[in-house]
Amino acid sequence: MIKNITNVRGIKCWGAHTGVKSMRRDLAIIYSEVPAAAAAVFTQNKVRAEPVEISERNIKGNNKAQVIVCNAGNANACTGEQGRLGAEAMVKTTARLLNIPEEDVIVASTGLIGEPFPTEDVVRGIEENIPKLSDNTKAGSFVANAILTTDTFAKEGFVEFEHDGVNIHMGGIAKGSGMIHPNMATMLSFIVTDIAIDEKLLDKALRYCVDRTFNMITVDGDTSTNDMVAIMANGLAENKKIEKESDPGYILFRDKLQEILTHLAKLIVSDGEGASKFIEYKVSKARSEEVARKLVRAISDSTLVKTAMFGRDPNWGRIIAACGNAGVNFNYSKVNLFVGDKDKIVQVLEKGQPVDFDKNFVKKLLRDSQIRVHLELNTGHETGIGWGTDLTTDYVMFNSVYTT
Amino acid sequence: MIKNITNVRGIKCWGAHTGVKSMRRDLAIIYSEVPAAAAAVFTQNKVRAEPVEISERNIKGNNKAQVIVCNAGNANACTGEQGRLGAEAMVKTTARLLNIPEEDVIVASTGLIGEPFPTEDVVRGIEENIPKLSDNTKAGSFVANAILTTDTFAKEGFVEFEHDGVNIHMGGIAKGSGMIHPNMATMLSFIVTDIAIDEKLLDKALRYCVDRTFNMITVDGDTSTNDMVAIMANGLAENKKIEKESDPGYILFRDKLQEILTHLAKLIVSDGEGASKFIEYKVSKARSEEVARKLVRAISDSTLVKTAMFGRDPNWGRIIAACGNAGVNFNYSKVNLFVGDKDKIVQVLEKGQPVDFDKNFVKKLLRDSQIRVHLELNTGHETGIGWGTDLTTDYVMFNSVYTT
Repeated sequence: MIKNITNVRGIKCWGAHTGVKSMRRDLAIIYSEVPAAAAAVFTQNKVRAEPVEISERNIKGNNKAQVIVCNAGNANACTGEQGRLGAEAMVKTTARLLNIPEEDVIVASTGLIGEPFPTEDVVRGIEENIPKLSDNTKAGSFVANAILTTDTFAKEGFVEFEHDGVNIHMGGIAKGSGMIHPNMATMLSFIVTDIAIDEKLLDKALRYCVDRTFNMITVDGDTSTNDMVAIMANGLAENKKIEKESDPGYILFRDKLQEILTHLAKLIVSDGEGASKFIEYKVSKARSEEVARKLVRAISDSTLVKTAMFGRDPNWGRIIAACGNAGVNFNYSKVNLFVGDKDKIVQVLEKGQPVDFDKNFVKKLLRDSQIRVHLELNTGHETGIGWGTDLTTDYVMFNSVYTT
Repeated sequence: MIKNITNVRGIKCWGAHTGVKSMRRDLAIIYSEVPAAAAAVFTQNKVRAEPVEISERNIKGNNKAQVIVCNAGNANACTGEQGRLGAEAMVKTTARLLNIPEEDVIVASTGLIGEPFPTEDVVRGIEENIPKLSDNTKAGSFVANAILTTDTFAKEGFVEFEHDGVNIHMGGIAKGSGMIHPNMATMLSFIVTDIAIDEKLLDKALRYCVDRTFNMITVDGDTSTNDMVAIMANGLAENKKIEKESDPGYILFRDKLQEILTHLAKLIVSDGEGASKFIEYKVSKARSEEVARKLVRAISDSTLVKTAMFGRDPNWGRIIAACGNAGVNFNYSKVNLFVGDKDKIVQVLEKGQPVDFDKNFVKKLLRDSQIRVHLELNTGHETGIGWGTDLTTDYVMFNSVYTT
């Protein structure tokens, strides 16, 4: 039996079809029976959807939340006053029916940008479905499906670990960031756990992990108006509350959170639109983690690298040139570069000079759907890892279809 | 009769085939009979080709130059000591044969990255072709062709204007920045003029114009290891030397330089690999030119906008989301957006709200190969303009072919 967010103590949820989308579920509600410490990170796009503004305000207010409510099919972005009122109606309705403060509601939307927000449908959906909140496993599946847009599969993760003599549960769901027609897709992820942890530490752990997971994936290099990662920790595991970074429970929790976010981030890349390959990029022996991560992002975002990967081309010139555009200094004459599939990897550069490798063999490795690119800087001890897709003719076709 | 750089007083040139490339001309030499004020801007990629380092040092040394020597077919990038010696040999040979100081040589390369530099061929080519330097019009054509790599046509520009009672001539050539297999293409442009101008002002004018021309074009968003724009002004027009920014001749000169660089920049975009459309992006009524230019670059670089253009899709959501990723603040609720072809343009957003426009009509306009996108910010009086291509399935196919 696969466990999901319903296996976290005190978590009930439901995912339903309200009619905003024609066929699939389009309303997700995740509820904690008790108020939870909460933290979230939001899109860095300057154009932000209405629910993003409200959720950020609510979480900043008291670092608490008790429910996440999310609709799919309409992003409530670029919708102005009408959209703001719609997002507020979602919050008010949810808070009223659950008898909790409005400040404890996290609200999110995903779907089309710039369409009038279907407030009536969504509010009616909330009213009809809050009574159905359940901790049955299928409710977890429903909610994972209800946040999807063009994703081809639901993305769930669950980890369980012992701390302070009790079993801690953590479950999460996500939806994809691949570009979708007719507008940008949202990257959403909602995590729940029953650990007891100080809300500032929760926030710190979340930011740490998001920087190393969701911020290290790329499908098309843009961020949407709606991106959000939120976590609620309701403390029902009744461990001694983690209050300090020096508490060994903090690092344990953060590791487990990173594990689940890595899992979800990789699932998102796997579902990248029009992609034919999943590529893991590693930059190691860097003088800082930040330098390593910036280089990973520059390589994985490069159109030229992505088309080379589609073409099974171990084109080290493009990889090195992408590094040169990363905005960080690195010593080209020290780098080693390796390219391969999930099992075998071949060195193509040694201290910046081409290695006489077997091109046909590497080309064969690059036929695999899982590719690895590994750059050693040899100037330190830090590592950055990220994940991306190739750029395919299918991607261009998908994204060029007239839809507005 | 079309005029070219050979119509600039004192300029002689030649473009020849030395054998580095199999068929086409691959060595360009542009010589001024007298030492000229010189300025140049170079790639911002951290990985820089050997000739870039040498040319920057030479120009910084005395702000003078007398010859530009450029080979095509081998970029002399990532070539280490062997490449450095090759670039130095180009400089030494050229200086010796012309009997000028080595510091007055600008050297450039374009072509494959990471291949051993064919020093012997290039040096022999220089020796054989310096005696052929000529001010015949065909020499101008030869030199424009000799810097090309996968460009499908030579790019030349020429302007003539009166200042201080004399006729001033300015001519230039360029090659494209579209990604090419197997490695990144270089953007190169060389300009010569017979105006007499202070070298610091020449540098200032060049930077001003490059920011508004070559820095405002995008084919695939990367900069190469070899990019260079260089200008020589030899003063043979014998106008009273322009010494101050307040000299009316300065602005006139700068305007003409911007005109010629705009022309060349647009030609480069027109020749973008696999592109089916030429798109002009304008952001107007901005509070600063910098904000306007940043937004233009963010829109024109967006993979999502580029695929929408390929698909003839007036997808304003993608354009607005790209603006949100530009790293500048703008008030979305004030923007007007227009999309159209070179003749007609249609408003699709009014103060951030969708306009009920005729989608089929706009779709029809977007069939044109020349598209315009115009964003009005309504928060000031400044304008930025840039040019880009669409992203096509052909682009992906071109760039995914195995070539390493």
